[in-house]
Amino acid sequence: MSSPKHPLDPLTASEIVQISSLLKDKSPNQKLHFKVISIAEPPKNLLRNFLIDERNGRSVPPLPRRATALYYLRGMSDMFLSTIDLDRNDVVDVKQMEGHFHGQADVNEILEIREACLKHPKVVEAIEKYKLPGHLKVACDTWPYGRDSDDHHPRYVQCYLFGKGKHPGSNHYDLPLPFSPILHMATKELIDIIRLPTGPSSELNHHAVYEPHPTKEYHHDLQAQPARTDLKPLLVHQPQGVSFSVDGHLIHWQKWRFRLGFNWREGMVLHDVTYDGRELFYRLSLSEMFVPYGDPRMPYSRKSVFDVGDIGAGVAANNLALGCDCLGAIKYFSFVIADSQGNPVEKPNAICMHEIDDGIGWKHTNTRTNDVSITRSRVLMLQTIITVGNYEYIFMWHLDQAAGLHYKIQATGILSTAPIDPGVTVPFGTNVNEGVMAPFHQHVFSLRIDPCIEGDNNTFIEEDSVPMPWDDSNPYGVGYITDKRVLSKSTASDSAPNRVHKIINTSSINKSSQKPVAYAIHSPAKQMLLAHPKSWHGRRAKYALHPFWVTAYHDTELFAAGDYTYQSHPDFTSDLGTWAARGDNTENKDIVVWHSICLTHNPRTEDYPVMPCDTMTVSLKPSGFFDQNPALDVPQSTQKDNGSTEIKDEALTAAVGGCTSNCGTRDSKL
Amino acid sequence: MSSPKHPLDPLTASEIVQISSLLKDKSPNQKLHFKVISIAEPPKNLLRNFLIDERNGRSVPPLPRRATALYYLRGMSDMFLSTIDLDRNDVVDVKQMEGHFHGQADVNEILEIREACLKHPKVVEAIEKYKLPGHLKVACDTWPYGRDSDDHHPRYVQCYLFGKGKHPGSNHYDLPLPFSPILHMATKELIDIIRLPTGPSSELNHHAVYEPHPTKEYHHDLQAQPARTDLKPLLVHQPQGVSFSVDGHLIHWQKWRFRLGFNWREGMVLHDVTYDGRELFYRLSLSEMFVPYGDPRMPYSRKSVFDVGDIGAGVAANNLALGCDCLGAIKYFSFVIADSQGNPVEKPNAICMHEIDDGIGWKHTNTRTNDVSITRSRVLMLQTIITVGNYEYIFMWHLDQAAGLHYKIQATGILSTAPIDPGVTVPFGTNVNEGVMAPFHQHVFSLRIDPCIEGDNNTFIEEDSVPMPWDDSNPYGVGYITDKRVLSKSTASDSAPNRVHKIINTSSINKSSQKPVAYAIHSPAKQMLLAHPKSWHGRRAKYALHPFWVTAYHDTELFAAGDYTYQSHPDFTSDLGTWAARGDNTENKDIVVWHSICLTHNPRTEDYPVMPCDTMTVSLKPSGFFDQNPALDVPQSTQKDNGSTEIKDEALTAAVGGCTSNCGTRDSKL
Repeated sequence: MSSPKHPLDPLTASEIVQISSLLKDKSPNQKLHFKVISIAEPPKNLLRNFLIDERNGRSVPPLPRRATALYYLRGMSDMFLSTIDLDRNDVVDVKQMEGHFHGQADVNEILEIREACLKHPKVVEAIEKYKLPGHLKVACDTWPYGRDSDDHHPRYVQCYLFGKGKHPGSNHYDLPLPFSPILHMATKELIDIIRLPTGPSSELNHHAVYEPHPTKEYHHDLQAQPARTDLKPLLVHQPQGVSFSVDGHLIHWQKWRFRLGFNWREGMVLHDVTYDGRELFYRLSLSEMFVPYGDPRMPYSRKSVFDVGDIGAGVAANNLALGCDCLGAIKYFSFVIADSQGNPVEKPNAICMHEIDDGIGWKHTNTRTNDVSITRSRVLMLQTIITVGNYEYIFMWHLDQAAGLHYKIQATGILSTAPIDPGVTVPFGTNVNEGVMAPFHQHVFSLRIDPCIEGDNNTFIEEDSVPMPWDDSNPYGVGYITDKRVLSKSTASDSAPNRVHKIINTSSINKSSQKPVAYAIHSPAKQMLLAHPKSWHGRRAKYALHPFWVTAYHDTELFAAGDYTYQSHPDFTSDLGTWAARGDNTENKDIVVWHSICLTHNPRTEDYPVMPCDTMTVSLKPSGFFDQNPALDVPQSTQKDNGSTEIKDEALTAAVGGCTSNCGTRDSKL
Repeated sequence: MSSPKHPLDPLTASEIVQISSLLKDKSPNQKLHFKVISIAEPPKNLLRNFLIDERNGRSVPPLPRRATALYYLRGMSDMFLSTIDLDRNDVVDVKQMEGHFHGQADVNEILEIREACLKHPKVVEAIEKYKLPGHLKVACDTWPYGRDSDDHHPRYVQCYLFGKGKHPGSNHYDLPLPFSPILHMATKELIDIIRLPTGPSSELNHHAVYEPHPTKEYHHDLQAQPARTDLKPLLVHQPQGVSFSVDGHLIHWQKWRFRLGFNWREGMVLHDVTYDGRELFYRLSLSEMFVPYGDPRMPYSRKSVFDVGDIGAGVAANNLALGCDCLGAIKYFSFVIADSQGNPVEKPNAICMHEIDDGIGWKHTNTRTNDVSITRSRVLMLQTIITVGNYEYIFMWHLDQAAGLHYKIQATGILSTAPIDPGVTVPFGTNVNEGVMAPFHQHVFSLRIDPCIEGDNNTFIEEDSVPMPWDDSNPYGVGYITDKRVLSKSTASDSAPNRVHKIINTSSINKSSQKPVAYAIHSPAKQMLLAHPKSWHGRRAKYALHPFWVTAYHDTELFAAGDYTYQSHPDFTSDLGTWAARGDNTENKDIVVWHSICLTHNPRTEDYPVMPCDTMTVSLKPSGFFDQNPALDVPQSTQKDNGSTEIKDEALTAAVGGCTSNCGTRDSKL
């Protein structure tokens, strides 16, 4: 990989080696267990000006290139946070973290934990008592221990065990075992084996043994029914090439200009987003995600994970495969992260980018003349997919030609399952197979929106559509207006069906409407965290309590549930709740908006053994930012450009048919 | 067009002629003004059995083929409703309608009204007083008069006038004139000319004269800025043909089977929808739509339209153009409706159907082996587009491979505009240009869902996710369950962020979950009608007050705001409010579910002079209908089938580039 050219370029392999070498050299008598080696983005007061100068073609002195590293002394609980200056090849500082802060789980230690768990004599004994037949192996999935007390114990990991068939793709989630070992993450010692509740209540059945049932398999090799044979290929081509241009991580497309970033934790980040040269967003990122379960019984009462902070959306990113994950003419972006030894690990094709046709852009037919004015909507999609144990999440940005950005999240993969006794159902889960229960849960994502709508000083408002009183100025009782509430201090804000949230710039007034330019956040009103606000879930994931938050910008405030989520203790965590509670002035200031998107997922049988994608969309759309439709200059859609074919009836009487290439130009007159 | 084969096939041209001839013969001394000539679907007790027998390959005696006609004596208010038996070539009955019922506006009379309006001396005089320059013409748009009193006057039409530039595509909405003539629809006489309020309140400015301002144009010939030149074509091909088969109006695709219907009023209808042979929906249709405006001032307080009942979604359907409205390998369906003379009028290409790729269907990566299991989501789309004056609406059904149906509505076209004095703004509208105000309004659609989820007897329920009390059975305060409420009597039902509505069949229990099979309706909680429930809007469009309704099935109950919406009087209208208020038993019965989808549209400047599509989606998804993911047998997605290309950097440093055909198969292992 070539040398970095830009302060926002992710770390290269050689930089990772440079950093880990520096730190190892500083602790020559210690083995280090690296958790994080990542670019440290420059402080905003420097970076913002750098980016503005760069965009405006002014020469810019380079900014210092710095990195952050987080590491343990291997096998110990001593954790250190360090800043490294890459230009000066120097460790700027090292700070030992207090003991209640923990690093996330990493791939290397997880593999060691799995092995230690499955080999432990007590675990082997429990498996034997369960009478698992010899032809089945045991798979061990690891979960963050979570928190359900004030205890400050070391990093623990909760192991959930499953019986697994011979085929490597066999669905082990279909045979959850009724006991769960807890291990000490650093020493690998067994802390406990918890018997899991499998009855209708929290009463434990200590004598549960293996009961066979037909496995529900997802792997295509293991399907009872044959694959469908009537699906004809659908191909997307761009014979004249693509409409986007890429220069390193700088992307141009249809008046959009932005930088693509990537790091171990947030995965895909968009920086310095402008449209037609006008400033929109400084930084857009997935700041956290939290998946709490609704089964009240121990240890499920603790069952939850911060997939970003506990694991890392960059770490968990898939290698996207051509034609499978992405269809058409695809540009891939590859990155490098670090492993626990401080060695670079490639994340090839972690982000894919391509255009899609998204239907009609806008249309009007002049019915007096039958003249049709129509454009199609072309969208630029950036996609990354993470696998976190059983689940997959797909994260996408869709940019459209009318200056809208749409953040889409899809959940797929495999439901988390728990064992359940025959004939039992529970009100907080769905039985998806004999002996297999999928508990209710929620997925709460935090989209961090650092805006610069036409400049740094923005304001966050609620705008409600409200009926006018039925009186003399509204004599028929039909009038309605909008009521605007400025969020002048950092705070949380709720959704309502009649409410839209907007980020406005009061210094820039729309010529026609006479209102401040704005971007609106369109996101359906959803049920937020169902766990009690004072529960450990509520206290550790305060961002999940409200859908919108606004804070005053601070460089260190990036992650909604705090920097250290693994077994986090709310009293020691500086998080979105803390920052909002400060009551900073947020009117006409450099603000950050945090949008919490919650999917309440009560599993259906159709979600098993693998789940059809469930999609959430948040749309950031201009609201009086432009004086007219910004997509007016999109060329008219014509058959000549689009080359569709018309299917005649004779081709269709059977499901098998050849294509009739009936591609004559069609007069746009009706 | 060939002879009809099926009771649900729309009328043919010759049938329309047959019907109008029969009726003309019955009234030899009268000229008839036809409003409706449409298929009369057989009563459900006959049709349902017919369809079941047909699907199961049993021979079926044909059902009587009947039609409905609605007509006036030309120039009079006498209106008649007739049933015709096409097989016996006989008029079965004719009933004169009471005077408070009115037929909808039709294209022929609208053209006459426009001419009569613009020629009327008083209108000419008003235009001259306004000092409209000679180079501008006047365009006349017609609106239903609406209702703001108990008066039972004849059919009136409200004419809104606009100054129009020379080019036929010039945007006349950019010059709304400040006076509005009202004409008698049948006699064409001028009833009144209403001065429109153009100031900040209801005070009238009788001396408003033409003030020039630069026109905001949407037509591509009239753009100040050049069209974008950096958009490369994106083509969709299906070289092996399409996956759907069509036999007349019977469609098969990916285990879906349904009949496509079409009529003057509802436009596109889906009948007898099954998936993999299992019954889902008897009938799916757009039962009504209502667009009330939020400007409280006379005459805008009346400004509203039922685009389905007042005009007809079939009448207003566009001729969809290959490559413009629809991309890929397209099947078109054409239909015939009747004009006011009783002659057939073709509606060519009123519905298009094609497949689309909708991203990933489902995915799981086995991180122990890096084996990827993935399918793409192929969707069958059916689309129809209507133009109603200034506005366009796109209606789509998306059927997916996981047995989900998604009803999508897009609003586009041109905002309705009103004149406004210089320097004035109002709290119930947005100024989109000098002198041009776009008032706030709502669009309320009624999706009529006549289910037969695994059989005729269904039940409609609310299912809420609710926290468990924090007590001994929920000691950590994290548990939550679902609370089910059966709607056992016909009623309205509201949305909530924690609520899902489901249609269940208690006689069919899911083997794994032990719960009744169901389809869930996923639709975001939206603001419903803002006009007061006791306003004329609220009383005439009761369906707009609540998002969900359930009634017991009755053959004649098809249209949510009643059969005759033009100037409807709520006291004489049998509508969804009436039917729900009966309190019929709806538990385990043949029910109909009505979903009202409301878009609160407070115009942005970006919506003008033509609006980028704004999309609403309602998803009908199986919820325990299947014992596992119904899309498990979709073949695995491979690069070999999908033929994507990878774009390398050298192709991208400029926005102009050729395609690099880098289509090697990629190992699915990561």
